[in-house]
Amino acid sequence: MDFEEKTLKRTEIFDGQIFKVCLDEVKLPNNLGTSKRELVFHKGAVAVLAVTDEGKIILVKQYRKAIESVSYEIPAGKLEEGEAGFEQEAASRELEEETGYQGQLTPLYTFYTAIGFSNEKITLYLADKLQKVDNPRPQDEDEVIELFGLSYEECMKLVESGQICDAKTLIALQYYALNYGGDA
Amino acid sequence: MDFEEKTLKRTEIFDGQIFKVCLDEVKLPNNLGTSKRELVFHKGAVAVLAVTDEGKIILVKQYRKAIESVSYEIPAGKLEEGEAGFEQEAASRELEEETGYQGQLTPLYTFYTAIGFSNEKITLYLADKLQKVDNPRPQDEDEVIELFGLSYEECMKLVESGQICDAKTLIALQYYALNYGGDA
Repeated sequence: MDFEEKTLKRTEIFDGQIFKVCLDEVKLPNNLGTSKRELVFHKGAVAVLAVTDEGKIILVKQYRKAIESVSYEIPAGKLEEGEAGFEQEAASRELEEETGYQGQLTPLYTFYTAIGFSNEKITLYLADKLQKVDNPRPQDEDEVIELFGLSYEECMKLVESGQICDAKTLIALQYYALNYGGDA
Repeated sequence: MDFEEKTLKRTEIFDGQIFKVCLDEVKLPNNLGTSKRELVFHKGAVAVLAVTDEGKIILVKQYRKAIESVSYEIPAGKLEEGEAGFEQEAASRELEEETGYQGQLTPLYTFYTAIGFSNEKITLYLADKLQKVDNPRPQDEDEVIELFGLSYEECMKLVESGQICDAKTLIALQYYALNYGGDA
């Protein structure tokens, strides 16, 4: 079976700081004709499941304009220009900027967040053997965040209440439950 | 601490079939000044971890234009107009259209896929007690898909090879491992 959709025409709709939006006209396989695809191109991001020696999970509370609400998430950040292929360095930087910690990083998973319309790819790392940095890199100027160190059980209460509500944090908590124990 | 970002101005960039793109100018809390937020508004979607009586997980192979590649995913689909609040009916419809099965649906998780820039929210269901439908609803005209029923171990091989590479399918597989057993 042939699956490929060939691009007949690409129209760039928006070229922003965070993403680019394109509208593709595609030729469907198997003589099914043509269709349109609305696409959001993103440089990718990294996220970090940071676990302290006491087994606490570091979460960042922040406002998310897309949902007009605060949420609790694992530390994460976008790749900067030229950082493709240097995800671990980016993860280390984001961890330090958002939490003031450095740690030993291990890659866990790489996944597309919204594969139906976007190529945003997140590489998720485990960070353990955490150590506070004396003079950590400063946070981004337009980020207002608050830090928490919570047990897995406390995190799952935030999942139940909807205050943890994003895919990357859920994946990280499931990983924790599978590998450190904890109820599903 | 104040977190809220107040909208000073919203500019609509694109209003498509799948999503709407807006550029917000926001007033940051704590007198931090103003900033811009690039946003993708989406009607939401449903996804289904369908498990046969033999413990096989139903996957759909399809082409994803955003990543210019095929991928194996759990069945999923966008909410249609007016389906907000009727996610279970939408999940039942998508399961039947994509796989030809009906089943008993149980909600597992609701999560934002790309919370940094989009409000796309997926509600994930477990479907078990699957039964083949005699005359299932037809697939969408512009979808070319192939069905697979794979063991958890076979799915994890597709994760390792990168052929399973999206957040919702990873969340579903980790749920399976946590609740049905299976190695992380």
